[in-house]
This record gives sequence, structure tokens and C-alpha cells, in this order.
Amino acid sequence: MTSVLTPAPTAATSTVDLGPAVALSCRECGSRIELGPYYACTECFGPLEVAYEFTERGEALRKKIEAGPDNIWRWASLLPVPAGIADTPNINPGQTKLVRADNLARELGMKTLWVKDDSGNPTHSFKDRVVAVALAAARELGFTVLACPSTGNLANAVAAAAARAGIRSVVLVPANLEQQKILTTAAYGGTLVAVDGNYDDINRLAGQIAAEQDDWAFVNVNVRPYYAEGSKTLGFEVAEQLGWRLPEQVVIPIASGAQLVKIDKGFQELIDLGLVDSSEYKVFGAQATGCSPVATAFKAGTDTVRPVKPDTIAKSLAIGNPADGPYVLDVTRRTGGAVEDVSDEEVIEGIKLLARTEGIFAETAGGVTVATLRKLLATGQLDPEAETVIFNTGDGLKTLDAIAHVVGPTARIAPTLAAFEEAGLA
Amino acid sequence: MTSVLTPAPTAATSTVDLGPAVALSCRECGSRIELGPYYACTECFGPLEVAYEFTERGEALRKKIEAGPDNIWRWASLLPVPAGIADTPNINPGQTKLVRADNLARELGMKTLWVKDDSGNPTHSFKDRVVAVALAAARELGFTVLACPSTGNLANAVAAAAARAGIRSVVLVPANLEQQKILTTAAYGGTLVAVDGNYDDINRLAGQIAAEQDDWAFVNVNVRPYYAEGSKTLGFEVAEQLGWRLPEQVVIPIASGAQLVKIDKGFQELIDLGLVDSSEYKVFGAQATGCSPVATAFKAGTDTVRPVKPDTIAKSLAIGNPADGPYVLDVTRRTGGAVEDVSDEEVIEGIKLLARTEGIFAETAGGVTVATLRKLLATGQLDPEAETVIFNTGDGLKTLDAIAHVVGPTARIAPTLAAFEEAGLA
Ligand SMILES: Cc1ncc(COP(=O)(O)O)c(C=O)c1O
Ligand SMILES: Cc1ncc(COP(=O)(O)O)c(C=O)c1O
Ligand SMILES: [Zn+2]
Ligand SMILES: [Zn+2]
Repeated sequence: MTSVLTPAPTAATSTVDLGPAVALSCRECGSRIELGPYYACTECFGPLEVAYEFTERGEALRKKIEAGPDNIWRWASLLPVPAGIADTPNINPGQTKLVRADNLARELGMKTLWVKDDSGNPTHSFKDRVVAVALAAARELGFTVLACPSTGNLANAVAAAAARAGIRSVVLVPANLEQQKILTTAAYGGTLVAVDGNYDDINRLAGQIAAEQDDWAFVNVNVRPYYAEGSKTLGFEVAEQLGWRLPEQVVIPIASGAQLVKIDKGFQELIDLGLVDSSEYKVFGAQATGCSPVATAFKAGTDTVRPVKPDTIAKSLAIGNPADGPYVLDVTRRTGGAVEDVSDEEVIEGIKLLARTEGIFAETAGGVTVATLRKLLATGQLDPEAETVIFNTGDGLKTLDAIAHVVGPTARIAPTLAAFEEAGLA
Repeated sequence: MTSVLTPAPTAATSTVDLGPAVALSCRECGSRIELGPYYACTECFGPLEVAYEFTERGEALRKKIEAGPDNIWRWASLLPVPAGIADTPNINPGQTKLVRADNLARELGMKTLWVKDDSGNPTHSFKDRVVAVALAAARELGFTVLACPSTGNLANAVAAAAARAGIRSVVLVPANLEQQKILTTAAYGGTLVAVDGNYDDINRLAGQIAAEQDDWAFVNVNVRPYYAEGSKTLGFEVAEQLGWRLPEQVVIPIASGAQLVKIDKGFQELIDLGLVDSSEYKVFGAQATGCSPVATAFKAGTDTVRPVKPDTIAKSLAIGNPADGPYVLDVTRRTGGAVEDVSDEEVIEGIKLLARTEGIFAETAGGVTVATLRKLLATGQLDPEAETVIFNTGDGLKTLDAIAHVVGPTARIAPTLAAFEEAGLA
């Protein structure tokens, strides 16, 4: 796939305006390449990330952000997007609630706990953030189709964002995906391709198509460096919502690991730009035991993440070969955090616990995060006295199957007062 | 059920602090009664509504609102809630997006169209608004249990709000309700009672239980006057989001009709309080033909709404005997609007149209609204040149069954580039 290493014909890289983004740089060897639809280093094949030259900082920047729109575009000065992005047709995710979780904190014996609840996004997961940034970059780079391989949340986000932007979407999903996720994606009217294969097969196919179709932006393949930056906004928002300061501990679910790494990157940029005081924080990662290659590596003290074959109800986190795994190890070790994993039973308990205590109904990924928080507390790895933020990145409505066997009506009665009273419900 | 007409023993009505609310007044005869858990007039059995004495107005009030929290409590000065409401544990709905719908407008030949998208609320429907206000009143009136009869959205909202407030919930639903809505409600861990009967049976049962259980607040029964006020915030938010002015036309779905009536009430209060300039606006109501008693009365030119037996896929709108029906007729006739109805096929087309053009995936109620907008345009009842706001009050994830037979994958292929190219998808 050499086409990713050389400028694609349709991408007018010389006139690209992606705001403060000035280049792509290799996360391994640091070598630079101009902005374009590239994701692998020409020198060492390492993954590329966006490099910036920020022109504003401190108080002036903070004021500008606070005066910005009530969505992720308030952070446009810190993202690879044109300055006028807020005026283009977008589904405008972000600025989701940071919920003070006193009930859950009490139940877990913690002092101060917050839930960053990204289920409030337009398609009800954090994927709306990354897709919005990928779309902005894709438009600027001259692409005309928005595409992705996905197992659900990303499919919804891409199809919805493309619909509103008025461009074509092509979404590849496993043919045996839950009917639920097929329907929600198909509703937006793009091209939805059911592929007889697992996610790895589809991911490979996406790479092959990307190499053929010059004007297709696969959000998590050929424009991945831009896409990934969208997750920084989760870190930015938490800091602003706390009154421009960082929490002491964060717990973040891991699939590819990109989200965790970018939340940390977001925190670092806020410090560098003088938007928050520099303070110590610990980053914790959460995985389901049935797909826990990063937790395994963390516990073994190694730098190598060994791929696994996923087997867990937390399907949105079921990436057996996580691209950002090694960087997750770096971040969690650097900050004094950890990576833990929990069983599927614990995931279900986590979903129920969060719903019962805070009225937030999370998908399985949120269950993984809550259950991991509990385990980190039980094992003494996370400090119950230190202010903690956990990230709920999806919505329980999308993974109803996972709880269908464990929740249900308290009672079933005839429609009479006598029946109600007899059932002992009063 | 005389208990609703006299103060319940547990309600300490003398010390009740519900902010600017000073009494309940009869919508028919105007007679007044003190604040309490009452919903029917002692003089004429007419429905009660909240009466206010607003102390602030104009510029000062506007500044206070703008400095308020990013949820419905920014409107606390105009709601029957204590001033400190924002600091109590709530799921804090509101401040949902007002989406500029240029694609949909173009497709319909309209000039300026907006979608007020309430699917972004915590449990993804506008019911979070009314429940939040009902909960505040219920607490202040001394109730200890939050309850409701429901067919779905209200059940979710009550169970979630009670969980976060740390009080018990009791939700009554038809036993034959979609598994989907049972599960989402049950997840929050309150008491969920499946009743062998239809919604009317359950509603009747709820009234009977309310008369027996002094400390149970049925949000849409014995604290209904407070509950209904929550829908004013939809009108308030639209006006603020438009830059403190009213739109020229609004299209609102109708079940009981309370939402439509309260959005109009909200607009009137904004005018009265000097928050917006007085301007003409037309209110349009939307029903599914399979449950269209108000549209029928509107078209017949009568004041009487004749109850029907609902038969439509728009289950959240399936109230055959709408309590606010006559008031809907008043509002739509007074403003020069109309009430229209659309077939189930049109509802499905409406859902698809909104998703395809704006990336907003609505439940059947939203499909009713979009399809009604289209019909009002086609029949010349709604002006395509006048600025219009339509209300999307729920989420497509909750009514997937309605579209299961009409959307699906574009193609199914083997996981190879050859198969992809053969399928003609590029
Ligand atoms: C709901 C949800 N949470 C978390 C993640 C993890 O994201 P990442 O791949 O960036 O680690 C995903 C990714 O697919 C997801 O769908
Ligand atoms: C999604 C949705 N929209 C609209 C309505 C109509 O509300 P109202 O009963 O106030 O007319 C309902 C009510 O149940 C609903 O669930
Ligand atoms: Zn390199
Ligand atoms: Zn009266």
C-alpha cells in the first residue's frame, strides 16, 4: 500500500487550511511530512500524528474558547480544522455533560467522582467527535466520500455526519452485526455494505479500497491522524467544566487506545498553552478481560502488546490488535496510572450500578469503565480521596442485548387496584 | 377520586416554595386554589394550571437567564421550582440543539427551517423536561415516590430521574410493550410493573393508586400541572437560540396536546416579560392519522374532541382521548395555524427524510412531525417563505421496529476487493 506514503492526486496539499495544524509528524522517529491523507511515516512506517503551531495562548485563548460555540468547535484553535469550521454543515457534537456522581461515589467509598457523559452526542457516542474532525480534514483534503469499517458506533457517526454534510457515505460492517446497529446506520441513507467476515477482515478490505479510491476518506484509515485528534476535546471539555483545571485521576475505556492517548495529549496541550495550571494526574485504562491485550502487557511490565482474538460482550471495545496499545502503556506508566480488565459479569454489574445510582444508562463500554473503576479501588490502585473523572463514551440503547437476561419487570399484574395491592408493591 | 380536590395530609402546602408559582388556577373558570398536589378545579372540575407572580422582567431577567446553567434550570425564574433547584441532584435536561436544517428546507422548497432536537436529552426525549419539573414539585410537596403510567418515553425519564435523585420510582407499563422499552426502564433499578391491559387501563389504575398512596407523586396525574410546565422550556430555548425572538411558524407533535399548549404559553410569557418583541406566529399540530382526534376536530371546525381507539405505529403519540385537545384547538385557531395528520407510511418516509437530509434519526413522533410539515406545505397551509421550527421530541433508537422492514444494507459481499468492485459500489 505505497499510495499512503505519497501525496494522493486529488489532495491539494499546498493550499490545505487546517487551522493550527502545520504538518504530520512520526510518533516514532519524529520525522515530518506535509499535511495530507497519510498515516504512516515514509522513514520508519511509524504512525503519524498532527503537529501544530499554536499562535494564541493563555488568557486571550481562554476568552476566545469561552466565547465560542456550544460544541467541539469552541476548540477549533486547537484542532486540525479550518477557522470557519463552525459555519459548515456538521452534526456539531461535544459539550456533553460532566455529571457530579455523588451517589456512585458514596456507594464506592469515594470522595469526588464525575462522569463525562458522551451519550448526549448526536448519535450517542464519542465517535461523533472524531468523525466531525475527520470530516473537516477530509473536505479540506479534497475527498468526496466519507467511509469507514465499523462494528457500530462509528458506523452511526459516519452515516449521520455525511448525511448532514450532504456527501456520500460508505460504511462497511460485519454481516452478522446486531440488527439494531444495521438499522440505525441504514436509516441515514448512505451506502451500507454488509461483509461476510469479522472486523479484522473488514478493516483489511477498507485499507485495500482506500488504496484504490483516491477520493474516499476512510475516517479511521487514511485520515486517521486527524480523526484521532477529535478525542482531545474530551480532555479539553472536562478541564473547562471543572473550572479550568485538571482532575487527579481519569478512567478511560480502551479499544484501539487512541481515545486514552488523545485525552492525555489534550491535558498536556492545556498545560503547555497556559490554559490550566500544571498538575499531577493519573491516567487509568479499562478493558474487558475477553479483549485485554493492553492490560495484559501493563501487568506483565512489557512494552509489547500481543494481539488477541476478542471474546466479550463489550463489542465496541473488541479490537484485538490495538494500534495505540504501546502509547497507552507509555501514558499510564508515565502518569502513575494502570490498565485493568473486568469480566463480562462485572461489565453488566457496572452498567446496572451506574444506571441505578446516577440515572445514566451506558452501553457495555461504559460498564467496562465503571467496573474497572470499582476494581482499581478494590485493589488499591486508585485513590478514593483523589478527584476522579470516568468517561461514559456510549449509550445503553445500542447494547440492550447485553442486559436482556438480567433486568426486567419487578412484577406482572392484572389492571386492578386489588392486583396491585396483592403484589406487595406499595 | 375526591382526594385530588382536597389537600393531601402529607403536603405541607403552607411552606411550599415553588419559586414564582403562587397558586393553581382553573383553566376553565379561573378560580384559584393554593399550591398542592391537585389537578382538578374544586368549582367546576376543570384542569388546573400553575399561576405565577413574576418579579423580574426585561433586560435584568434576560441577563440572569443567560448567566444560568446550561440546562432547563436557566429558566428557573419562570418555572414552578425552588430558586436553588440547579444544586439538587437532577438529570438536568434541556439546552438541546436548535439545528439549522438547510438540506431539508431545500428538499421541501422552504426558505428557513430549524429542527429543535430533543433527542439529546439524558433519556433521549422531551419527557426529561417535564419529569424534572414534576420531580422538583414532588419533592417540595413532600412526596417520597415518583411514579407514572407510560408507554415508553415517560417510563425511561421517570426511572432515570428518580435514580439520580435517590428516591424510589414506580412505573406502570403495558405488559405487551416492546422489550426495548421494558429493558431501558428496568435498567435504572426502580419498581417496574407490567400490567395486563392497554394504556387506558393503566392510566385508570394509576389514578386509583394515586388516591390511595399519599406519598406517591404520579408525574402525569396528581402533579400534572407542574409537570406540564416543563414543556414551556422548549419554547423558551427556541426563542433564546434564535437570538431572543420568536419564529413565524412552529410544528409540534400531539399526544395529550400539553406540549403544544405549553410551548405557546412559553412564547406568551416571553412576550409578556419583555424578553422578546411581540410578533405574530402560527402554531401547527401534528398527529398520526391512526390517532388523530384533534386533527379531526380541527378540520370539522368543532370545539369537541371525540375520543378514538389508537391504531398507529406512532405509539408515543397514541393517546385517543387527549386531555389538552380543546386547548390545542384554541391555540392553533387563535394563531392561524392548523392541525394535520399523516399516514403510517408517511411517518416512515418522514423519519427517513430527516435522517437522510440532516443526520437526525427521529422516533416515530418525529416522523409524524416531518411528514406533517410536508403535508402542510403541499396543502398550502404553511408558508414556505416564513421561518419555521419543527420539534423532534424523541429518538429513533427507541422505535427501531417501525423502520425494520424499510431500511437495510445496500449490498452483502464477501470480504474481498474483487467482491466489492463487482457489487458496483464504487
Ligand atoms: C463506546 C466506545 N467507547 C470507547 C471506544 C474506544 O475508543 P478507542 O479505539 O479510541 O480506544 C470505542 C471505540 O470503538 C467505543 O465505541
Ligand atoms: C416523543 C414524544 N413526542 C411528543 C409527545 C406528545 O406530548 P404531549 O402528550 O404533551 O402532547 C410525546 C408524549 O407522550 C412523546 O413521547
Ligand atoms: Zn518515522
Ligand atoms: Zn374551574
